[in-house]
Amino acid sequence: MHGRPSSLLPQTLTVQLAERSYPILIGPGLLGSADSYAGLPRSRMAAIVSNETVAPLYAQALADALAARHERVIQVVLPDGEVHKDWPTLDRIFDALLAEGCDRQTVLYALGGGVVGDMTGFAAACYMRGVPFVQVPTTLLAQVDSSVGGKTAINHPRGKNMIGAFYQPQAVVCDLDVLDTLPERELSAGLAEVIKYGPIADPAFLDWIEANIAALRARDKAALAHAVRRSCEIKAWVVGQDERESGLRAILNFGHTFGHAIEAGLGYGHWLHGEAVGCGMVMASELSARLGLMPASFVDRMRRLIERAGLPVQGPPLGASRYLDLMRVDKKNEGGQIRFVVIEALGRAGLRAVPDALVVEVIEACTA
Amino acid sequence: MHGRPSSLLPQTLTVQLAERSYPILIGPGLLGSADSYAGLPRSRMAAIVSNETVAPLYAQALADALAARHERVIQVVLPDGEVHKDWPTLDRIFDALLAEGCDRQTVLYALGGGVVGDMTGFAAACYMRGVPFVQVPTTLLAQVDSSVGGKTAINHPRGKNMIGAFYQPQAVVCDLDVLDTLPERELSAGLAEVIKYGPIADPAFLDWIEANIAALRARDKAALAHAVRRSCEIKAWVVGQDERESGLRAILNFGHTFGHAIEAGLGYGHWLHGEAVGCGMVMASELSARLGLMPASFVDRMRRLIERAGLPVQGPPLGASRYLDLMRVDKKNEGGQIRFVVIEALGRAGLRAVPDALVVEVIEACTA
Repeated sequence: MHGRPSSLLPQTLTVQLAERSYPILIGPGLLGSADSYAGLPRSRMAAIVSNETVAPLYAQALADALAARHERVIQVVLPDGEVHKDWPTLDRIFDALLAEGCDRQTVLYALGGGVVGDMTGFAAACYMRGVPFVQVPTTLLAQVDSSVGGKTAINHPRGKNMIGAFYQPQAVVCDLDVLDTLPERELSAGLAEVIKYGPIADPAFLDWIEANIAALRARDKAALAHAVRRSCEIKAWVVGQDERESGLRAILNFGHTFGHAIEAGLGYGHWLHGEAVGCGMVMASELSARLGLMPASFVDRMRRLIERAGLPVQGPPLGASRYLDLMRVDKKNEGGQIRFVVIEALGRAGLRAVPDALVVEVIEACTA
Repeated sequence: MHGRPSSLLPQTLTVQLAERSYPILIGPGLLGSADSYAGLPRSRMAAIVSNETVAPLYAQALADALAARHERVIQVVLPDGEVHKDWPTLDRIFDALLAEGCDRQTVLYALGGGVVGDMTGFAAACYMRGVPFVQVPTTLLAQVDSSVGGKTAINHPRGKNMIGAFYQPQAVVCDLDVLDTLPERELSAGLAEVIKYGPIADPAFLDWIEANIAALRARDKAALAHAVRRSCEIKAWVVGQDERESGLRAILNFGHTFGHAIEAGLGYGHWLHGEAVGCGMVMASELSARLGLMPASFVDRMRRLIERAGLPVQGPPLGASRYLDLMRVDKKNEGGQIRFVVIEALGRAGLRAVPDALVVEVIEACTA
């Protein structure tokens, strides 16, 4: 660690969930270091679940770091992309685990982005009714959002993340060095979830992101370290308050209702999840303004920041009725009404049922 | 209730699991009575999940009893049989729920035997990451065993119940009257799980079953009421001690390791689960004797009772090596060793790793 600025010393946060509490490790060089996994369950068998993009880059380093903890570490390599976040791909994990004789003590390591993390977590939740798993996120989006909090799922043709479980990992290991290999488009997608934390929880963080968006896009390590740490702090706090999304946790879905409709409407994989969320936040900001909660200047501010992050700010032309149909299956809905996360004041979000007519106005204002 | 013997008054037991505690109602006439569901969550939508055998008999009566609790009660009718306890059938539940716009408050009612209960419970565990569900078991086996305790699962081609979740119902409603329509073979299959509770937990109950096996097979209501109640008491106690099978709960799998191998080896659906468990208990008793834990007379006693219950006592000739292969994927195994529930003393069971050679002896002694 010689010569590293203090902002790059490894940090450990904790997600406070009583007997399900777990650490989030953040720092450079963590993935390949055996120390990162100290304190986790040992077992005869372990499985690294990754995809064909990430596995060639990091699976061997992870396997080497785990060699002293498990007699055998198998690898399950999935096809890459949101379009594969489905049952047949999930079943490939089960097939491999059963073929290799993996028992109920087997530890799964999710090595990849949000898709790998969500699928590996759901596989861990279901395999023999539950085995331990560890998140080793390799995208910015997974490090700042999807790897923390225990939401796992696969998509259903009728809706995103419709089949899943709340199932917490044993630990999250965020190695900042792996962000070096992230394609630029994926980096921007991750920034969408970083930006999200500002308006819903922390105005000062929003200011900081605005001041540092160029450094973040240039992958300045200290800037990334701060962005990951502050994002994880906020996420860990929210999850600790409301593990199973009975209330507060829904605010983390700011921009996601519109975003999920964009993803599903275009077909999974056309836009990245973070791209859809970026654009969805512009729409949800517009909605907050039209509800009279926020000034128009807030929408402009969000649109400009999201654009500077390299993200789309105009929704695809699916047509308002298609948007509405797609949003009707959202998990946050209740009693047949679509509910949206809106910004009530800078740093505070809430969940509101909104009349269709107003939603249509927002869609028409914000799509091509 | 006029004129009913006291043994037929409705009884309520409780599965004690802190905030996940729930009642088991046992008695005649419960399924079609709105009172049975008082205190359960109300919601706009509900879904009765059943199969093509049970739905025509009882789905309408259940829907009528629920009419005041839910605005809309949809029905999902699955094909009947263990062979359908798989992903494509589970996905039919998800399809129906999503097509009908069922939200995260939707209550699922499992109306049927063990297969329907296991699948509906797993669907409830996964749909939008968890919705409430209620067990309305219509087979003896489901009433005395599978509907209580929150084990849910589907089968995988490589092993039974390999993909599932621990997910507790809101209530279990055991209507003794529905046993009137149960085919004789299914009644016997249910008796296997009743008999199980004797050797693992309650020698006096084993005596009682022996004295009442003819009455049980003749569907004497008072005898069935006692059998269901005592079985549920024991099961509820065990589950309350060890919800997620970290230890004690495994004793409920007495006979199931051999039984699962029989089911998988013959192809699901050839033998009923209870038939395979009946035969599996003979084999596990034989194993207990060969380990020197129990006298040979215990094996004779178990074999005779299981035979009197109308169950097979000789395993199918799969060959010892096939049995071993099938048992190697059992969830109770650890470190590559097959572990069996054995009887250590009448009323007390334990889990033991057993050398293959001894298992082969048992298989050879107990199969055709």
